[in-house]
Amino acid sequence: MSTLREEVEQEFRDLRDRICARLEALEPAGAKFRCTPWQRPGGGGGEMSEIRGDLFEKGGCNFSAVSGDRYPGVPEGRVAEGDAALGIQPPRAEEMAGKPFFAAGVSLVMHPRNPNVPIVHMNVRYLEVGDVFWFGGGMDLTPFKAFDEDTALFHAVLQSVCGPERYARFSRWAKEYFFIAHRHSERGVGGVFFDYLRGEESWPFVQAIGDAFLPAYTPIVERRRDTPWTELDRAAQLKWRGRYVEFNLIYDRGTIFGLRSGGNVEAIFMSLPPLASW
Amino acid sequence: MSTLREEVEQEFRDLRDRICARLEALEPAGAKFRCTPWQRPGGGGGEMSEIRGDLFEKGGCNFSAVSGDRYPGVPEGRVAEGDAALGIQPPRAEEMAGKPFFAAGVSLVMHPRNPNVPIVHMNVRYLEVGDVFWFGGGMDLTPFKAFDEDTALFHAVLQSVCGPERYARFSRWAKEYFFIAHRHSERGVGGVFFDYLRGEESWPFVQAIGDAFLPAYTPIVERRRDTPWTELDRAAQLKWRGRYVEFNLIYDRGTIFGLRSGGNVEAIFMSLPPLASW
Repeated sequence: MSTLREEVEQEFRDLRDRICARLEALEPAGAKFRCTPWQRPGGGGGEMSEIRGDLFEKGGCNFSAVSGDRYPGVPEGRVAEGDAALGIQPPRAEEMAGKPFFAAGVSLVMHPRNPNVPIVHMNVRYLEVGDVFWFGGGMDLTPFKAFDEDTALFHAVLQSVCGPERYARFSRWAKEYFFIAHRHSERGVGGVFFDYLRGEESWPFVQAIGDAFLPAYTPIVERRRDTPWTELDRAAQLKWRGRYVEFNLIYDRGTIFGLRSGGNVEAIFMSLPPLASW
Repeated sequence: MSTLREEVEQEFRDLRDRICARLEALEPAGAKFRCTPWQRPGGGGGEMSEIRGDLFEKGGCNFSAVSGDRYPGVPEGRVAEGDAALGIQPPRAEEMAGKPFFAAGVSLVMHPRNPNVPIVHMNVRYLEVGDVFWFGGGMDLTPFKAFDEDTALFHAVLQSVCGPERYARFSRWAKEYFFIAHRHSERGVGGVFFDYLRGEESWPFVQAIGDAFLPAYTPIVERRRDTPWTELDRAAQLKWRGRYVEFNLIYDRGTIFGLRSGGNVEAIFMSLPPLASW
């Protein structure tokens, strides 16, 4: 398994580099990602890359690879019910409780300044707990103003990468996962979400999902970046970002895992917007 | 018990009225609380009062009295450990699970515009679950810039209302409760917090806590409201408010109870700041 682990770690670093380079190239005045390495006292660490630009008011693209003696688990509840409904078999609690773990991933959230350009999130991850290992990930688009052709493009790229069967399941899973229960509302226009994909045969698919991020998102940025916006749009965008904060702090599996496993707070909260209102 | 319930409900409404009237009187240009009643589909409802003023950029003072067939409970974890460490006996889970409940309370959070004026939170509440009933509540001060004399005044008022024994226990409880675990930091300069105070004999104390809010806070507002501030202060205030959001969405008992019990989302989130940054 350590060969797969090493390969995943290297590929995730490379993916992060490719994404950061391409997103930087979109910045009109040359804003760059600033990379800050961090170490986790319990084992491993990561590199968080943050950009504060003209196009991307705030964005983060983080690589991490952490390990520890005792898997902290994820909370029970709505999400686990969603998994079961989709016929997914998460590792049983007994298989995982207190076992040594290794987790590597790339997580990205971009908060554009122009309210016409949607927020985007992407994550790919690899976990080993005791003797089991699996992959998870996904991406989703959160426009404040949804444009049908953007939604269609984003989903078309995902559909072509997933194939019809996986796209049907994983886009439905995203609808359930990226759901703000207390507002009875999806957080955006969806995408794909998946977890507990066991076996080495899932690795090429997870790589393909990572590679799909740029073609799924950058054409939308280029199409909307010069659309004018009003102060009213801006105010509504900040309110919408407030919902994004609510989702991430109340429901997000990655955020909760990060906080529970003693991850780097700044890296975990790179997903939070530069400015939000209520 | 229904006599106590009615008395509590009436007194909580009156407390809300007194507080709103006094805080409105501090607004320089006559901003007023806007009161919006809401009904809970499962039973009961409330009145949320929100102000968007010059002094108080955003503030809320909510009254609610809700009931239902099945108590939704509060999550296990850090908080329950804190209770136990303080010798508090929460009602046992078996006493509460699935029992009919009634909950009434006043909750207040004020977010001043001037970074020299601290955020304040106050809550008093009464709960019945099955055959048991108890009181809870507290208040705490969250300055972005802490002034020793403000902290001293706030705590002096609380100490005089609580008496030395209760003040010692409940201010220690506040230190544990208003704690942002993932940042290893208190959220402000403390105050008091208490829960599971059983018996009718606690009612005068809870009333006294409600009455202590205005004398504990308004002198601080009057002392700091005209202190000049810079854009740098403002930026730091918005960051500090981000931590306030983190606390409320990740740890706060009232927020979690509200969301779980199908409370009114706008009323629950009145505690969130008008603008916050990360």
